[in-house]
Amino acid sequence: VRVENRKKVHHFENFVFAAADNDSEEQSEKIVPGAWRDDLPAYSAAEVAEHNSLSNGVWVFYANGVYDISEFVRQHPGGADKIMMAAGSSIEPFWALYAQHRCDEVYEILEQWRIGNIEVQASASRAEASDDDAMFANEPDRHPAFKVNSPRPFNAEPPPALLVDRFVTPNAIFFVRNHMPVPPRVDAERYRLSIETQDGRCVSLSLDELRRLFRKRIVTATLQCAGNRRSEMSAQRQVRGLKWGTTAISNATWGGVLLSDVLAHFDLATPGELSFKLAHVHFYGADHDGAGTHYAASVPAEKVLRDGGDVLLAYEMNGAPLPPDHGFPLRAVVPGHVGARNVKWLERVVLADAEVDSHWQRKDYKALSPSIDWSVADDQDFADAVSIQELPVTSAICSPPPGAVVDASEQDYVSVQGYAFSGGGRKIIRVDVSANGGRTWHSAKLVRSVHDEDVPLHPHDFGANEADSDAARMVAAAYLASPDSNRYAWTLWSVDLDIDQDNTNDRTVELCVKAIDEAYNSQPDSIDPIWNIRGLLNNAWHRVQISIVHSD
Amino acid sequence: VRVENRKKVHHFENFVFAAADNDSEEQSEKIVPGAWRDDLPAYSAAEVAEHNSLSNGVWVFYANGVYDISEFVRQHPGGADKIMMAAGSSIEPFWALYAQHRCDEVYEILEQWRIGNIEVQASASRAEASDDDAMFANEPDRHPAFKVNSPRPFNAEPPPALLVDRFVTPNAIFFVRNHMPVPPRVDAERYRLSIETQDGRCVSLSLDELRRLFRKRIVTATLQCAGNRRSEMSAQRQVRGLKWGTTAISNATWGGVLLSDVLAHFDLATPGELSFKLAHVHFYGADHDGAGTHYAASVPAEKVLRDGGDVLLAYEMNGAPLPPDHGFPLRAVVPGHVGARNVKWLERVVLADAEVDSHWQRKDYKALSPSIDWSVADDQDFADAVSIQELPVTSAICSPPPGAVVDASEQDYVSVQGYAFSGGGRKIIRVDVSANGGRTWHSAKLVRSVHDEDVPLHPHDFGANEADSDAARMVAAAYLASPDSNRYAWTLWSVDLDIDQDNTNDRTVELCVKAIDEAYNSQPDSIDPIWNIRGLLNNAWHRVQISIVHSD
Repeated sequence: VRVENRKKVHHFENFVFAAADNDSEEQSEKIVPGAWRDDLPAYSAAEVAEHNSLSNGVWVFYANGVYDISEFVRQHPGGADKIMMAAGSSIEPFWALYAQHRCDEVYEILEQWRIGNIEVQASASRAEASDDDAMFANEPDRHPAFKVNSPRPFNAEPPPALLVDRFVTPNAIFFVRNHMPVPPRVDAERYRLSIETQDGRCVSLSLDELRRLFRKRIVTATLQCAGNRRSEMSAQRQVRGLKWGTTAISNATWGGVLLSDVLAHFDLATPGELSFKLAHVHFYGADHDGAGTHYAASVPAEKVLRDGGDVLLAYEMNGAPLPPDHGFPLRAVVPGHVGARNVKWLERVVLADAEVDSHWQRKDYKALSPSIDWSVADDQDFADAVSIQELPVTSAICSPPPGAVVDASEQDYVSVQGYAFSGGGRKIIRVDVSANGGRTWHSAKLVRSVHDEDVPLHPHDFGANEADSDAARMVAAAYLASPDSNRYAWTLWSVDLDIDQDNTNDRTVELCVKAIDEAYNSQPDSIDPIWNIRGLLNNAWHRVQISIVHSD
Repeated sequence: VRVENRKKVHHFENFVFAAADNDSEEQSEKIVPGAWRDDLPAYSAAEVAEHNSLSNGVWVFYANGVYDISEFVRQHPGGADKIMMAAGSSIEPFWALYAQHRCDEVYEILEQWRIGNIEVQASASRAEASDDDAMFANEPDRHPAFKVNSPRPFNAEPPPALLVDRFVTPNAIFFVRNHMPVPPRVDAERYRLSIETQDGRCVSLSLDELRRLFRKRIVTATLQCAGNRRSEMSAQRQVRGLKWGTTAISNATWGGVLLSDVLAHFDLATPGELSFKLAHVHFYGADHDGAGTHYAASVPAEKVLRDGGDVLLAYEMNGAPLPPDHGFPLRAVVPGHVGARNVKWLERVVLADAEVDSHWQRKDYKALSPSIDWSVADDQDFADAVSIQELPVTSAICSPPPGAVVDASEQDYVSVQGYAFSGGGRKIIRVDVSANGGRTWHSAKLVRSVHDEDVPLHPHDFGANEADSDAARMVAAAYLASPDSNRYAWTLWSVDLDIDQDNTNDRTVELCVKAIDEAYNSQPDSIDPIWNIRGLLNNAWHRVQISIVHSD
């Protein structure tokens, strides 16, 4: 979180640099971190992996270097929880998220903890994804920080504390919700998108034509899976579905063209042209189940056409081409709507009079009444329910994690961070946080909200530390020039809650959070009244229990 | 409610008509109800007023006729609660709401209960509103059914059971929320509306020009006071404000012109033209405090201009000119937004870069955090809070009333009716009703919702039993021709809940209701977490306690 970052920059300046023992003069000119050193022993990846806790020692590797950072963990300016994510493995995927590590000062600090060498096996972890199933031959490498809820099809969410570190989520840790295997990578030169009407008109477009014929549009939009926070709902009463924690949600800046511009250009529909015949827009993905069923979902045509709409055919994510897990080469981005409508690997768009006849539109992604359980649910119940489109207001605590222990002898406050979001472009106007289960509330500081329009975005927020940094900077500039640019983005928040120092008993405290959006919708207090058999849209207050102890 | 009406029609058909004793043959040709009869005694209004309960006898009058309807009350097809509203007074204001009473069959039934004559004093009740205060010289007559929360300025709400009888609320019982005295009635020929920009451009328009130059637009929109259901909130912890019950909400079909059409015509702003300079639209009313302060409120310019907007300059309410209490001759109608922005007696519109600098925009109609009470609230708290615009999802039980007694020996179900509504054009997709305080839920039948698009509207719904019935029918026809016509209207609902016949103990049951809108926003379970010092936007579950008894 930005607030935390500011605090940590202060710590960083105070950090006492101790020069490495060896050859410090040459290093200060040009450090080559992780270069093989014949004076040190060699370790296997398995040996490093055993050292993944404070009790066993914390080892990491970088290039060919092995480091014992046990003593450094608590000094880490970014917090012990972040650096521990790399314990026993490579720190490179994490440093890829944080450009500030790429400087000589940091390399020097790293090298002072050097204990050995490792033979780097570039594809060690990838070997697991062996090709015993041809369907899954196209899965890309994924970031080791992910918590994987399903390996096939791949569904994974990032660590909460890492997620809220950035307003714009780096592509590498953006949550992944795949319904089927990742389809074969298409040749961007040969890719075609087809757009069809029900009266038989059709156009077919190349990626180059999309880029060349239409003005590029940018939108920062938070996507959230309808199943986010399903685990909590399932803990109350069993539901069916992937056991998502709190981070099946991420925020990116998408680049592409307005679908309404394309429809108008080919005279398939003009902005504002809505009728009974053109009431829904269907999106079909290239991903399929091997038996002919492609992923498909639809949105009301109004979302596409009203006032030019804001549905993108997106070819960029944070200034880079879409990664394989996020729909390369093209996806629908439907800002403010549930993730399931943002169809990836987009192949086909159909203008229609009714919702698409797919499982994901007609049977799934509908929240039934809490009174309907699997023993009574029938087709009529699903037919009667309304498809999830715009998302309800929600929020979650991302730090501290459940079970965290805070030593009241060391600090007189608990720092709490998280996200809040509402669908339909409704901004978050207030986030209330409680340290006593909801009896009394404190307003959190909001970042990237209606209240902080003067806080500038940083190029890092647009992936500028990733491959295509010039493009990312251009995206950032274009984005900043547009008013009301954060309508569809989440709000990050932070608050320091005082610890009652008169109470010296060790105790458990329930933190909870609820957000209020600009329509003054707020979150339901409890899960039971919104429980549904598929465990969708759990937006009850998020509750985290932590311990307050007194070490002295 | 429609569902109840259907049921009652069935009762009505079974109603046994007993011919009146006197002169039945002539009456069957042409009944003149309430004509003076020299064969019967005369009573004063005071004498009739004493008979206003089942224990004292229930008398009513109609024209010059006095009737003892004590025995008829329980047979009344519309329910005993409705007819008792007229006990001790004239039934005419109530029959004005129900055109079905205007037929010979009903007149004959009435005349059979005739006991005397009354000298009708046309303005008996109006005399109270004497002119001791010149400021209040322009108050109109009001319907006797109103529950008056403040006589001056006039603030009143209709009886809950009467309100949900109709999808479109008759003008006579539409809730009234006046901030100041009703201004003097303007001559419609001399009235002018001024529209101004901040760079000094201005146009002035007559009512005739508005009607003549611009296409008439119709919208059915529910208006709700931000203080609706404040009494419940105040019962939890004292708040400041008028003690509204559950019916500071009503639904009408408004006729007028689109503000965006007017702005475009005079080149003051074109649809979609939004900028930092044109960010808010101010509305000023003719009503004032006598010291120069006029009522004023503003809305985001986007609501007026995006996609042509849907903000009306309305001159008609349910097919009739605006009544004095509702802003004659012109008001703003901002569908989906809080009542306070629907400025009445509209005199002046200003296009501006900031919200209007009025008490009602900057200090009132903002819901602060529950942690802020009057002892700590300061100007900064109000400045930091966001003005209420779109309303959050809400619902209420309108029948049975709190404290109702249901005899389980007579019926094995409780029939529950009410309304549900959400702001911003978000339709209601489900209403959950519980008879055990929220442990289990039943889905109510919705009327005028996404689920009942095939249920036709009736001309009565547009005030066709009121003065200007041809106009009302035209309004209804035009309205029905437009798709998605109920976006900004409330949803009425009805459900019959089974009474557990195995439990023969007399007991108290807590009914409660919560609604879900199409963004799957639902209502907070309890009031405390949304409590605020002004008692605004209480949209917690509505709870009503009733008694179940067993008479046998």
